[in-house]
Amino acid sequence: MNLVIVGSVALDTVETPFGKVVRALGGTATFGSIAASYFSSPGIVGVVGGDFEQRHTNLLKRRGVDLEGLQIVPDRKTFHWSGYYEGDMNRAITKATHLNVFKTFRPIIPPEYRRAPFLFLGNIQPDLQLDVLRQMKKPKVVLCDTMNYWIESQPARLERVFRRSDVICVNDAEARQFTGCESLPKAARNLLKLGPRRVIIKLGGYGVQMYGKDSFFALPALPLTKVKDPTGAGDTFAGGFIGSLVQADRLDEHAYRRALAIGTVMASFCVQDFSCRGTANLTRFAIRRRLASLRALTCFRV
Amino acid sequence: MNLVIVGSVALDTVETPFGKVVRALGGTATFGSIAASYFSSPGIVGVVGGDFEQRHTNLLKRRGVDLEGLQIVPDRKTFHWSGYYEGDMNRAITKATHLNVFKTFRPIIPPEYRRAPFLFLGNIQPDLQLDVLRQMKKPKVVLCDTMNYWIESQPARLERVFRRSDVICVNDAEARQFTGCESLPKAARNLLKLGPRRVIIKLGGYGVQMYGKDSFFALPALPLTKVKDPTGAGDTFAGGFIGSLVQADRLDEHAYRRALAIGTVMASFCVQDFSCRGTANLTRFAIRRRLASLRALTCFRV
Repeated sequence: MNLVIVGSVALDTVETPFGKVVRALGGTATFGSIAASYFSSPGIVGVVGGDFEQRHTNLLKRRGVDLEGLQIVPDRKTFHWSGYYEGDMNRAITKATHLNVFKTFRPIIPPEYRRAPFLFLGNIQPDLQLDVLRQMKKPKVVLCDTMNYWIESQPARLERVFRRSDVICVNDAEARQFTGCESLPKAARNLLKLGPRRVIIKLGGYGVQMYGKDSFFALPALPLTKVKDPTGAGDTFAGGFIGSLVQADRLDEHAYRRALAIGTVMASFCVQDFSCRGTANLTRFAIRRRLASLRALTCFRV
Repeated sequence: MNLVIVGSVALDTVETPFGKVVRALGGTATFGSIAASYFSSPGIVGVVGGDFEQRHTNLLKRRGVDLEGLQIVPDRKTFHWSGYYEGDMNRAITKATHLNVFKTFRPIIPPEYRRAPFLFLGNIQPDLQLDVLRQMKKPKVVLCDTMNYWIESQPARLERVFRRSDVICVNDAEARQFTGCESLPKAARNLLKLGPRRVIIKLGGYGVQMYGKDSFFALPALPLTKVKDPTGAGDTFAGGFIGSLVQADRLDEHAYRRALAIGTVMASFCVQDFSCRGTANLTRFAIRRRLASLRALTCFRV
């Protein structure tokens, strides 16, 4: 176990122009750990209720995900999100959020997780993120995500989390909202001032940007004509990204770039099917092939 | 003269958070020809009024732009656009458009332009674009731009232009509007069905995508923290793009990719200053250096 992922484990009811799933496996820790499992040994810290079916835990176990940190509250229900996407599916429209067990979730890091060198902090409440950081023993890389709700309601707490992170991973709207800068390069520069080694700004179907103190890198999303369900793409990206970092010999710019490419590739698999169907049964060969095609479509000769 | 550029020559009054210019040199043919002039010998076909100052023609001549096709109507006024940008400057807000001489513009291609192998059709009325195509003697590459107004009012005429173009160059909103597809890969595929060799979709600050029948390529915009004025960025991009194609030995995927990179680089110079100030006085060295840095920030090892 070399990667701890803290975040939601959820049941998602999702409708898109291409179909519908009811109470399908979802959540940050789920999407993230499945993506990371191809490159690292992730363990998840989260909570589910008594309604969380055996087949879901089986799927995660099959992917080699450690579930020691997954709390089970038998007499309550799992976090349930339901929503839909329309048109270009760039934005989820929430129908209902039942936090259930997630409402009182307090992450408890199992002893055997605490020395893991890599940590992916999903978009939970900043105070809980700080609590996780206190429990961990000096991870080498902390990747931190957040969401508009925390930016709005607890920016100061969130800033503390950002200051203790090595990689801040947000989408374009969140970067703008947190910094008050419309320009993404400016927003990234402001975020870099908080001390992380890299700031990643996700642009949905337009790809992703990565800013360092003296570096910039960007990748387009793969040009998929069949996107079925964008749910979990960001978490899958982050999971693939940090999983790839676990594999790296040195955490240099090349390692970060390769990780960004791996994240992009994993996200592309994710959106091609509902829930985790697109990522749960991949081969290393399929991943490598898609990575090669991503590389091919971003190369040019000067 | 190996490249004909047909489009507006304008005077722009532009205000952005970083300053203001009054009646500064602008227009598609202006921005496009200045960008193209570093790689080719462009001639422009457009119209100006008696108020078009000598210093403007001097600037264009200094850049080696042929003005044989520039009609001058002494007793009328030059096309004047005035507008402003706010916030992230992704969208121009028009205060006034005085078409003036441009209202009755009919492009007349001078005899010595007609055999030019490259043609950049700016976003004028589709019927005028078709008229230009009739006057030209089989150009090797026709690059065609348009705008929301023509997509709305004359889609069928515009489709005829697209069918006769080798490169369709539009922005994301235009691609979606013309095809009715929210997904850009789908929109591009539909545009490709009209027969062009490449479809280019400009994404403003997010970069640019290029689709071929069996190819895809994308580039991010350069991460500029000081963008002063986005006016003319798209035209500058297109001018740099087609200018670079003029230089190519063979029109293969590599040539198109390099052209997309050159267009991106020229557009980055454009937005760093008002009007044509950012592009009118460049050195080949500065362009090559920025091209190299664009390449460096899009490379990764598999």
